[in-house]
Amino acid sequence: MNKDDLVREIKQKQSFLCVGLDSDLTKIPKHLLSYDDPVLEFNKQIIDATKEYCVAYKPNIAFYECMGSKGWETLQKTLDYIPKNIFTIADAKRGDIGNTSAMYAKTFFENMSFDSITVSPYMGSDSVLPFLNYKNKWVILLALTSNEGSKDFQYIDDISKNKLYQNVIYKSSKWGNERNLMYVVGATQLNEIKKIRQIIPKNFLLIPGVGAQGGDLISVSKIAMNFECGILINCSRSIIYSSNGYDFAEKASFEAKKIQQKMSSLLLEKII
Amino acid sequence: MNKDDLVREIKQKQSFLCVGLDSDLTKIPKHLLSYDDPVLEFNKQIIDATKEYCVAYKPNIAFYECMGSKGWETLQKTLDYIPKNIFTIADAKRGDIGNTSAMYAKTFFENMSFDSITVSPYMGSDSVLPFLNYKNKWVILLALTSNEGSKDFQYIDDISKNKLYQNVIYKSSKWGNERNLMYVVGATQLNEIKKIRQIIPKNFLLIPGVGAQGGDLISVSKIAMNFECGILINCSRSIIYSSNGYDFAEKASFEAKKIQQKMSSLLLEKII
Repeated sequence: MNKDDLVREIKQKQSFLCVGLDSDLTKIPKHLLSYDDPVLEFNKQIIDATKEYCVAYKPNIAFYECMGSKGWETLQKTLDYIPKNIFTIADAKRGDIGNTSAMYAKTFFENMSFDSITVSPYMGSDSVLPFLNYKNKWVILLALTSNEGSKDFQYIDDISKNKLYQNVIYKSSKWGNERNLMYVVGATQLNEIKKIRQIIPKNFLLIPGVGAQGGDLISVSKIAMNFECGILINCSRSIIYSSNGYDFAEKASFEAKKIQQKMSSLLLEKII
Repeated sequence: MNKDDLVREIKQKQSFLCVGLDSDLTKIPKHLLSYDDPVLEFNKQIIDATKEYCVAYKPNIAFYECMGSKGWETLQKTLDYIPKNIFTIADAKRGDIGNTSAMYAKTFFENMSFDSITVSPYMGSDSVLPFLNYKNKWVILLALTSNEGSKDFQYIDDISKNKLYQNVIYKSSKWGNERNLMYVVGATQLNEIKKIRQIIPKNFLLIPGVGAQGGDLISVSKIAMNFECGILINCSRSIIYSSNGYDFAEKASFEAKKIQQKMSSLLLEKII
């Protein structure tokens, strides 16, 4: 999917919500366990319930890989079930030497047809470039994450007082452009997001950490949005596990709609 | 596998060779394509041909993931075929927020029974700690890699003139110890390896980059070895693709033996 299509979808749905499919066999409602593929059934019902209100789905690959070869089938079937107008993110955080990153790109972009993949920057350019060779596919590079451990290395100042995550953005922004490169920026880091927008005013940001991890949707959006929206806000657990009963899909729909309505107001303020 | 067992194996075989199973359907000998599972057949013959001369096998997960759900079956069968006295490394370079890293740990340590997994440090402590909770399992953390892109971020000096990779080692060495934490250090960085040995004299180092990537076995080993060997040197392509014909296993055996003999001399010099 290209940027124009993504922006069009955001405008039409008045939403920049990404629903994270961190679907865990031990957490989904018990009544689904009688299905042949309980996680697939869960995902299908979550997708049906939320697809009106979101513009992206982000399966967390760990949760599928954990089920072995069957998990990969569930992942593929989930991907096939997602409507084609919705942006898909393989949350895989891959990154390796060139020939290996090329294999990962082939897996997620050719074999599985994801629109994008999250990539870790630690190994540098040749670990990222193979993913950028695909037309209308995206790298979503880890910059500033929302977890506790983000403080360990991402904030280290260099001798010019640039933090590591800023160096990651400076350097990598020359490898791609705003049509094939997004960044992961945690919602819990409001001051930092301001600085990030100065470095990369045009790139999309994928923002986790709203909801379960404590970030506030409205404050983060106001700081992070650009002239064409430019952000995707991910919510996983707060939507997909909002009920553990027979009404899980209905509750997920309700939570997604509530967020979409807030997003619609935010977009209206920006006249997007 | 614990450290004592690994060191015993090194002494018995007089080898610290790790064979990288970067097994690629497009690169294995053509006559294997008639098998039901050509990559598995290739791996089995490579393992039979090299198991006398190496102490570790390192399947590169990208090459299996690329084949979809069947690839995961091939990976499991390959792992089952590796003799139990040989250390196994899932070269997966995972790393995510705590609950996701816990899923990856479950996949590779419980479901698949790998002895160790390579992990990327970018997301910090909570992305690494879940892997360290397993007894007799190992994290092999990326520190200084051997690829071109390693220069992009790993060498960035902080205000005290510590490079990022040194900060990764300083900080992470407190999360684990020499019985559950190894580091990836590229063979092409001799001066840096000296400095690394001053920070972590006891931890094992997994050293890629000998052979195809240009590192020299003897110089790197002399600098990196410690009192109980303390290094695993990985060779992938230079062993497993040393012939493309019917003699591929024989040639792989010959290459592995040649390396083992050099390693034996190096171990004798150190009286290990």
